[in-house]
Amino acid sequence: MSSETFISKLIAQIQEKKSIVCIGLDPRLEGSQCIPDFIQKEEKNANDAIWRFNKDLIDATHDLAAIYKPQMAFYEKYNALDALKKTIDYIHQKKSLAILDAKRNDIGSTSLAYAETIFNYFQADAVTINSYLGIDGVLPFLEYFTHGKGVILLIKTSNPSSGEFQDLFSVALPDQSPEITEIQVEKIQLVRNYIQMTRLMKKWAKNHDKLHECGPNDFKYSNIGGVVGATYPKQLETIRNEAPEHFMLIPGYGAQGGTAQDIVYGVNVDGLGAIVNASRSINFAYQRDPYKDQFTAQEYYKAARQAALDMRDDINKALKDSGKIAY
Amino acid sequence: MSSETFISKLIAQIQEKKSIVCIGLDPRLEGSQCIPDFIQKEEKNANDAIWRFNKDLIDATHDLAAIYKPQMAFYEKYNALDALKKTIDYIHQKKSLAILDAKRNDIGSTSLAYAETIFNYFQADAVTINSYLGIDGVLPFLEYFTHGKGVILLIKTSNPSSGEFQDLFSVALPDQSPEITEIQVEKIQLVRNYIQMTRLMKKWAKNHDKLHECGPNDFKYSNIGGVVGATYPKQLETIRNEAPEHFMLIPGYGAQGGTAQDIVYGVNVDGLGAIVNASRSINFAYQRDPYKDQFTAQEYYKAARQAALDMRDDINKALKDSGKIAY
Repeated sequence: MSSETFISKLIAQIQEKKSIVCIGLDPRLEGSQCIPDFIQKEEKNANDAIWRFNKDLIDATHDLAAIYKPQMAFYEKYNALDALKKTIDYIHQKKSLAILDAKRNDIGSTSLAYAETIFNYFQADAVTINSYLGIDGVLPFLEYFTHGKGVILLIKTSNPSSGEFQDLFSVALPDQSPEITEIQVEKIQLVRNYIQMTRLMKKWAKNHDKLHECGPNDFKYSNIGGVVGATYPKQLETIRNEAPEHFMLIPGYGAQGGTAQDIVYGVNVDGLGAIVNASRSINFAYQRDPYKDQFTAQEYYKAARQAALDMRDDINKALKDSGKIAY
Repeated sequence: MSSETFISKLIAQIQEKKSIVCIGLDPRLEGSQCIPDFIQKEEKNANDAIWRFNKDLIDATHDLAAIYKPQMAFYEKYNALDALKKTIDYIHQKKSLAILDAKRNDIGSTSLAYAETIFNYFQADAVTINSYLGIDGVLPFLEYFTHGKGVILLIKTSNPSSGEFQDLFSVALPDQSPEITEIQVEKIQLVRNYIQMTRLMKKWAKNHDKLHECGPNDFKYSNIGGVVGATYPKQLETIRNEAPEHFMLIPGYGAQGGTAQDIVYGVNVDGLGAIVNASRSINFAYQRDPYKDQFTAQEYYKAARQAALDMRDDINKALKDSGKIAY
């Protein structure tokens, strides 16, 4: 059992690496951007090709990544769960951290089975969770806080249709209990569903965690964070203000269109509170502008390093320009 | 590619087997209710023990089950995805159907990766989905309608805390688009979030499916259904009335406390529109009242058969008593 909390380990990584970059590890074996052909030919199966690709990428970037984030869907698709396990082990060998992006959600013993798989078997440091089912589905994961693990809830996702449900206006009550049967229209305050989810995150943290002093200014942070897309900077700012003690995992930078300027809204004045994910734009930088002219397929890991370095510097510059601390 | 739709295959199963019972296949290797010790000792690993247990269970119940529902969490936990694949193959050999209970949710190419794994690799006939992320996360699954596949959205789950988010009142607008910026309080109508999700289900079905005439009364049904817990019969009735053309997967019967009388609210007058899941109470009937005194551990599959038979008859009697068709 680790005596350190997830959030203290994450902040130590950010400070050491002077980076809030999270590198997604989303292996693809086909399509216009994918693991180089020569690796796929040299390795005997998908598992080996993915493991080799990830290992090279981690070797090339671990001094730049605050954390890594393998996306479970791709490892399942290629029947490469062994590569996933080896990848997380290797991230730990390199004294780095891993979020398993699994977006799991279920109840009771089923939720517990997922938590055991993710934290005990794969040894992930944190996991993404969909909390539409309420605390029943989240609690088995929160109970791993004492083992140095973290939990990240979907709040406002980066995709175009995220507003379809998450942006709905709903009624804010002093106590949003399931027993609500009727309300008086003239007394209601309306908030978006993503704010409701933010408030549930705060409530669950209060009931099942304590805030941990960490960081240079003794800001306090929780082990429970939220996913908020860089593609929605205004909402990111709103959620940041609603939940200053919760870190945000911010996808959508790069390939999805989010910029460093958008990220700034998710960061507290202490320079903390956010990690920014990029997957394709780092993984397959060797096939993308501007790196494809500078690196060969054989140099894919060098291209990935350059993309991660550029992303880190881009974000740190935007943070400095805004008057926030950049490590 | 199958020319039959998922919903027509499901209804044919219900009619042939005179049953709306869905048997969950949730293998457990430890705890007070689990796969018998003698199987765990005789088989060389978890994969083999689970496969043997499931095969016996399917042999003993396939004439009683409208459909089976393996819960992915347990196969992942025991590193028994091979047993899962063999189980679904065997269900098909027995001319039955399988829902993979995965509650997946992601966006774009990640969601597509999950869909490919579940429908192409595991060959599931339907899948459970969490649609908090909107249509982006659901569409890659809906596109399999033309391959005879079905999709089941989480609407009102059976667990105690499901109301924490799903029961929140939110604002019903003529067009719930993400562009909503402000609303006039005096003009609003409020509905629960689970009704919002029901309406999204209807909208997505309208845009991406057509209704299929099936059943004896030419009722029309969609390939997209919803999960609604038997533990919330009032809400089940509300959702049934809101979406008569969508089938409901109803968990919560038996071990979780839902009764046959509660189920009735989820069934249309044509006797269709619902499948009722039980997992533990059938899988491990040999360890539960009243079957544990009638069957030995070696007879676990006979106990499961008796439990499935009793459940089918219990539900069919309640349907008949309520004036609804029971097959």
